[in-house]
Amino acid sequence: MQEKGLLIVLSGPSGVGKGTVRKEIFSQPDTAFEYSISMTTRSPREGEVDGVDYFFKTRDEFEALIEQDKLLEYAEFVGNYYGTPVDYVRETLDQGKDVFLEIEVQGARQVREKFPDGLFIFLVPPSLSELKNRIVTRGTETEDVINNRMTVAKEEIEMMNLYDYVVENDQIERACDRIKAIVIAEHCRRERVEPRYIKMLEVD
Amino acid sequence: MQEKGLLIVLSGPSGVGKGTVRKEIFSQPDTAFEYSISMTTRSPREGEVDGVDYFFKTRDEFEALIEQDKLLEYAEFVGNYYGTPVDYVRETLDQGKDVFLEIEVQGARQVREKFPDGLFIFLVPPSLSELKNRIVTRGTETEDVINNRMTVAKEEIEMMNLYDYVVENDQIERACDRIKAIVIAEHCRRERVEPRYIKMLEVD
Repeated sequence: MQEKGLLIVLSGPSGVGKGTVRKEIFSQPDTAFEYSISMTTRSPREGEVDGVDYFFKTRDEFEALIEQDKLLEYAEFVGNYYGTPVDYVRETLDQGKDVFLEIEVQGARQVREKFPDGLFIFLVPPSLSELKNRIVTRGTETEDVINNRMTVAKEEIEMMNLYDYVVENDQIERACDRIKAIVIAEHCRRERVEPRYIKMLEVD
Repeated sequence: MQEKGLLIVLSGPSGVGKGTVRKEIFSQPDTAFEYSISMTTRSPREGEVDGVDYFFKTRDEFEALIEQDKLLEYAEFVGNYYGTPVDYVRETLDQGKDVFLEIEVQGARQVREKFPDGLFIFLVPPSLSELKNRIVTRGTETEDVINNRMTVAKEEIEMMNLYDYVVENDQIERACDRIKAIVIAEHCRRERVEPRYIKMLEVD
């Protein structure tokens, strides 16, 4: 019998660098889990490719998928929808492969309800002021937008208690190493592997 | 305020290769935890050095330390005492450093009672027959001793449910990588780090 893969959920406050960390992880050749591409109604940023970074959809298309119950999670964030197509996730887990989601905190909460055994990782900035710097550095936002994001970020950090692990994004490479270590460790958790060893004892 | 270090306990059936894995971990320059040297009344094996591999003691000396409550744990195994001096462990944890113990399963059970928050890792052989091969290969034991050890090993594998993690010793390097990943992951566990981040929110 094929053991199911592990559902890995990376989330965290807006602006913390989830996307950058995710891209770094999947640029490394030894990464042994599959990336579930999110769907969004927001416009592509420079360099983003449809079907690689996101599946870009119109609001009408997105709402049709909500109606058909084809999304594992979805959230509206700063006026745009973000979501995870459910079929890819279930099929890949059934093949025994680990699936990696990089999603907003509202979505992570929905996934937790459906996959309580998932591995939930919260990415945090070294400090909130550092977070503010990153949002400002992006350079395209008004002060009102920035202040609104800071309030949202504080609320999101307070949501930390829904997660299994907290990873500080002090350096991208270090954050990636920690996330990969967490996945390795999770595969060694006694509750997950004990049944296999009990079987070994019976066979001998 | 100095955060306390993590107590890491590596245990597993006799003959599984705990000592070899521990030596490999501490031969690696990036290992960031301290080794707590065990005390024993058994004779040194070839190449073992007093104060490096073990503190070698007489039965009288060992029993005096038991009386003085100077051992975090001790066990009698195949006619010899093994134990962990308590002062070194407490002082090193208080300095905020992680301490690594490599001990027998009877001892690990005692440590679990005193340090329920410790990180308990169970090293297992790829199969029980593989375990038997290793004990036979050591070459110095009679068949009765081997059969007795096998019975003990089966009992020990059944003790797996006292542990947080199970690491298969299929290859020494892979086992070491997994153990180090588990320590990194454990430092990211939300229950351990959340208080630090809640403080960050208050300061901002």
